[in-house]
Amino acid sequence: MTKQRIGAYLIDTIYRAGVDKIFGVPGDFNLAFLDDIIANPHVDWVGNTNELNASYAADGYARINGLAALVTTFGVGELSAVNGIAGAYAERVPVIAITGATTRQVEQAGKYVHHSLGEGKFDAYRQMFAHITTAQGYITPDNATTEIPRLIDAAINERRPVHIHLPIDVALTEIDIAEPYNPQPQKDVDASHYIQQLAAKLASASQPVIIAGHEINSFHLHKELEAFVDATNIPVAQLSLGKGAFNEENSHYLGIYDGKIADDNVRQYVDNSDLILNIGAKLTDSATAGFSYQFDINDVIMLNHKYLKINDVTIEDVPLPSLLRQLSAMTYHNQASFPSYQRPEKHHHTVNSEPLTQQCYFDMMQTFLKPHDIIIAEQGTSFFGAYDLALSQQNTFIGQPLWGSIGYTLPATLGSQLADQQRRNILLIGDGSLQLTVQSLSTMIKQRINPIIFVINNDGYTVERLIHGMYASYNDIHMWDYKALPAVFGGKDVQVHDVASSKDLQETFNRINTHPDVMHFVEVTMAVEDAPQKLIDIAKAFSEQNK
Amino acid sequence: MTKQRIGAYLIDTIYRAGVDKIFGVPGDFNLAFLDDIIANPHVDWVGNTNELNASYAADGYARINGLAALVTTFGVGELSAVNGIAGAYAERVPVIAITGATTRQVEQAGKYVHHSLGEGKFDAYRQMFAHITTAQGYITPDNATTEIPRLIDAAINERRPVHIHLPIDVALTEIDIAEPYNPQPQKDVDASHYIQQLAAKLASASQPVIIAGHEINSFHLHKELEAFVDATNIPVAQLSLGKGAFNEENSHYLGIYDGKIADDNVRQYVDNSDLILNIGAKLTDSATAGFSYQFDINDVIMLNHKYLKINDVTIEDVPLPSLLRQLSAMTYHNQASFPSYQRPEKHHHTVNSEPLTQQCYFDMMQTFLKPHDIIIAEQGTSFFGAYDLALSQQNTFIGQPLWGSIGYTLPATLGSQLADQQRRNILLIGDGSLQLTVQSLSTMIKQRINPIIFVINNDGYTVERLIHGMYASYNDIHMWDYKALPAVFGGKDVQVHDVASSKDLQETFNRINTHPDVMHFVEVTMAVEDAPQKLIDIAKAFSEQNK
Repeated sequence: MTKQRIGAYLIDTIYRAGVDKIFGVPGDFNLAFLDDIIANPHVDWVGNTNELNASYAADGYARINGLAALVTTFGVGELSAVNGIAGAYAERVPVIAITGATTRQVEQAGKYVHHSLGEGKFDAYRQMFAHITTAQGYITPDNATTEIPRLIDAAINERRPVHIHLPIDVALTEIDIAEPYNPQPQKDVDASHYIQQLAAKLASASQPVIIAGHEINSFHLHKELEAFVDATNIPVAQLSLGKGAFNEENSHYLGIYDGKIADDNVRQYVDNSDLILNIGAKLTDSATAGFSYQFDINDVIMLNHKYLKINDVTIEDVPLPSLLRQLSAMTYHNQASFPSYQRPEKHHHTVNSEPLTQQCYFDMMQTFLKPHDIIIAEQGTSFFGAYDLALSQQNTFIGQPLWGSIGYTLPATLGSQLADQQRRNILLIGDGSLQLTVQSLSTMIKQRINPIIFVINNDGYTVERLIHGMYASYNDIHMWDYKALPAVFGGKDVQVHDVASSKDLQETFNRINTHPDVMHFVEVTMAVEDAPQKLIDIAKAFSEQNK
Repeated sequence: MTKQRIGAYLIDTIYRAGVDKIFGVPGDFNLAFLDDIIANPHVDWVGNTNELNASYAADGYARINGLAALVTTFGVGELSAVNGIAGAYAERVPVIAITGATTRQVEQAGKYVHHSLGEGKFDAYRQMFAHITTAQGYITPDNATTEIPRLIDAAINERRPVHIHLPIDVALTEIDIAEPYNPQPQKDVDASHYIQQLAAKLASASQPVIIAGHEINSFHLHKELEAFVDATNIPVAQLSLGKGAFNEENSHYLGIYDGKIADDNVRQYVDNSDLILNIGAKLTDSATAGFSYQFDINDVIMLNHKYLKINDVTIEDVPLPSLLRQLSAMTYHNQASFPSYQRPEKHHHTVNSEPLTQQCYFDMMQTFLKPHDIIIAEQGTSFFGAYDLALSQQNTFIGQPLWGSIGYTLPATLGSQLADQQRRNILLIGDGSLQLTVQSLSTMIKQRINPIIFVINNDGYTVERLIHGMYASYNDIHMWDYKALPAVFGGKDVQVHDVASSKDLQETFNRINTHPDVMHFVEVTMAVEDAPQKLIDIAKAFSEQNK
C-alpha cells in the first residue's frame, strides 16, 4: 500500500501500459497535473503547438507504440482535439484522451468559469466525447483505482480512444494505492466451433481469398495472420486502408485490392473468388474505388473485432486477437493456384531535367525505401500514389484513408518518429495539407527528431480539384515559401532541398542518404493537374457518389 | 415563384440576412455547394487554412458584421471547427455553421464512406453540435424553405451559432422558391409591468448602479443602453467580458468593474451599491478576479437575454432587445452622485532605450489608438493589459475572456478586418497564442487586408506561468523567427518591425501612422516574468480556484 497523488497514479498507470511520451498542450486546468508528468522519470512531456496537432501526434505515436496519451484542458483544449480523436476512433487507434478540468466544487456550484459555456452546466463536452470514444470516465478519489485501469484496458482491448475527465482537485488528491496497474488483456474466447465452420466452408470453395485490413495493424496481429496464411495456403489481398497488414514479401501476397481499379491479376482473382475471408478489413469507399467490388458483400465471411459473421450468423463476443491466435490451428490447405504479387524489380523512370511527374516521383520513391522505414502518406496525391509502393516485411505504412482528415500526417509523423527514433520516418505530404498543421514542424525541431519530409507543391488541393472544380478558385491555396519554414521554426540544422526534376530528386535522395542524422525537408514542385492514376480514378468515384 | 438550387437559395438567404463573406475550407462533400457561393455576385468565398481558424474568423466577422457563415465538410471539417463554434455559443456570437455532408442515399444505405466513423451511423456529429448551437436542422428539399429561414432567424435572435446539415445531393436539388427570405425579428414582448417593478425598486435605492456586459455587444444595443442611462442618470460599470458595451466617453461611465482588483472608486461604488442592475452581463471568474465581488449575487437584478430576474421572480420570455427598447421610457431619475471615469489624459512613460515593460507597452498603446479602431486582444497578457485602455465611443474591443481559447484572435482579426475594411484593426497577441493559429496570417495576406499586428515575444505561455509553473518546462514554447513569418506566407509588402524598448515602440508607431496602407507586423520583446498587474492578480485567483 503506497500513497500517491491521483495525477501521479494516472501517469504511472499509463507508463505501465506502455506509454513513454505524453502529448498535449498546457492549460490552467491541467497545469498542476503536468507537474506529475514532468516529475515521472519514465515519461516525457511533449508540448504541442495546438490540440488538434497534439491529437494527431498521439495517433501517430499509438500506431507505432501501441498506445498513446493526450492531455488537454477543459473545453477549449479538449474540443480542439475532437477531430483527431474521432479519427483515432474510426481507424481503431488507442489514444487515452485526458481532460484536466475544473474542480468538483466549481462544477457542483455551477460557477460561470472560463472555458465553460457560461451557463453552469459542465457535462456537454463529456457527452460530445461519448460519440467518439469507446469508454469514458469521470475520475474521483473513490473510483480512481478502478476507473483508470478500466479505461486504459478498454483503450487497449478495443484499440480505440477513451476519454478521462480529471477534475484538477482530484488530480491533486492523495490516495492509497494497493497495487500498481497490470494490463488486463481480454480473455480468450474459445472460437473452435466457428473455426470448424470456417474450415468446412473453405473445403467446399475452389478459389478462396483473404482480404486483410487495418485491424491487423491496430491489434498488431501480423504474425498471427501470416501463420494462418502459411498454414492454409490461402492468398491475401490487402486494402489500402490497412496497408502493412500482410507481409508483402510473403509468396501468398496478391497485391492491393481496390475494386475496379486494382491490377487485373488481383481484381480478377478477388472478384471471382467463391469464398472471401475479410480479416480485420473494412470495405470503405476510399479503399474500393467507391464500393466497386464485384462480389456480393453478403457472401463475405467477416472476421472483424467483435464482429464475426459466417453465412447469416453474426457473433459479437469474439475479440479479433483471440480469433487470430486460434486460426492457424485450422486443418485446411488450399489447393488453388493464385497469381503472386510481382514486386517492381525494374524501374522505368529516366533521370533527367524535365519537370517531374507524379508517376516518376512514386516510381523513384520505390528505390529510396529501406527495409525498416516508416512511410507516412497524406490523404491526397501522396496516399493514393504511395499505397502502391512495394513494402518489405519490416516497413510500416501509415495513412488515414477512412477518416481522411487532411493535415493529419505532419503531426502524425511527429508522433511516429518519437515512438521509435531508430527507424527512418518518411513523410509524403502536399502543400494544401501541410498548411493546416504546419506548426508541428516546429515541435519536430524542438524535439530534435529527424524525419524526411517531402512536400508536393502543386499549388492547391489537387485531390479536391479531381473530385470537383479543377480550376475553381476555392481549390486554390496561397503560395508559401515552403523552403523557408524550417528556418522560421528554429531548424538551423535542417537540410532543405528543392526538387523540380527527376535529376533533382535523385540528387536529393543521394544527399539524404549521405546525411542521415539531420532532418530533411524537400519541396517537390509538380504540375497542378498531375496526379497518380489511382487518385484520378477514385476521385471520379467520389464525384459520382456525391450526386 | 422562381426555381433555385437549394445551395443557391441558402446562400441567397444568408446574403439577405446580412452576410457578404463566407468562411470555410473545401472538402469533397461541400465542393458542389461552393459553386453556389462563388456564383453568387453578392458574397465572397474566404478559403481558410484550416477549419478551426475558419470558425474563429467567422466569429470575428460576426462580432463586427452582426452575423457570419462558415462552411465545412462532413466529419473531419465540422469537428475541427467545434471549439470555435462552442466559443461563439458561450460568448453569444451568431455563426451559421454549415456542413456539406454525404448524400441522403449514402446515409440511408449506411455506407462505410470516408469521413464517417465507418460504422454506418451518420448522426454522431449532429448530436455533438446540439450541445454548442442554439438550433440545428437537417435540410431536405421538402423543408428547405422553412428550415433555412428558421435556423438563420434563430442565429440572429439568439445571437448564437446554429448548425445546418446539408447533404450534398440536397444542395444540388432545384426547388420552387415562393418568396425570398426576410429576417423575422423576435416580436416585442410588453415589458412595462416589469419596468414598473424595476422603477419602484430603483426609487427605494440610494446607490444604484448598472453592470453592463457582452450581450449589449452581441445584440448591438449600445444606443438603447445609453438612452436608458442618460434618461435615468444611473452610473455604469463595465465588465471586461463585454468591454465596449457602454460608451466610455459618457459621463455616467464609472470604469471597469473586475471585483477586488478594480480601481478603488469603481470597486467601492459597486460593492457598496444597494441596487445592481446587471444588463447583458455575466459575472464570470475572469471578469471578476475569481468571483471576488462583495455584493450578494442574489440581490442583483438580472436583465439578460431571456433571463429577467427581479427579486425571486424569473421571467424567461422577454428578449433583451425588446426589454432595452422599452427601458428608456422608465420614469425614474437617480439622485446619487458617483465618481465618473477619469480618462488617462497624461501618460507616465519615458521614451528611452531600456527594455520595454508591459506597463509601458500598454501605457503607450493608449496614445496609439484612434477613434474608429477595432482593438482585438488575445487572452493572456494582451487582454488583461488591454481591457484597461480608455476607448472612444467609436472604438470596438474584441476579446474572448469567457471562452478564453488561446489562438483565437489572429483568425478573429482576419474576420473583423474583412467585415469592415475601412476601420483600422489592431491585434495584440502573444507568441504562445500566435503559434496555435499562425496560418491565418497567410489568409490575411491572400485577402490583401492590412491589420496592425503586435506580437509579444516573451518566450512562452506567461498567462499559464503566472497561474502555475513559472519556470516549468511545460510553459516553454519553441522560439520562432517571428519576423520572418510574413515573408514565408507571401507577404512581400508587409512592414515588419522589431521592438525592444519604448523608443523602438514610439518609432514603430510613427512608421505605422506614416504608412497606413500596408500590413504591419511588430515583434515586441519583453521579459518572461513581466505581466500587466491585472493578469498577475487574476492568475492568483485562478490558481486559488484550482485547489
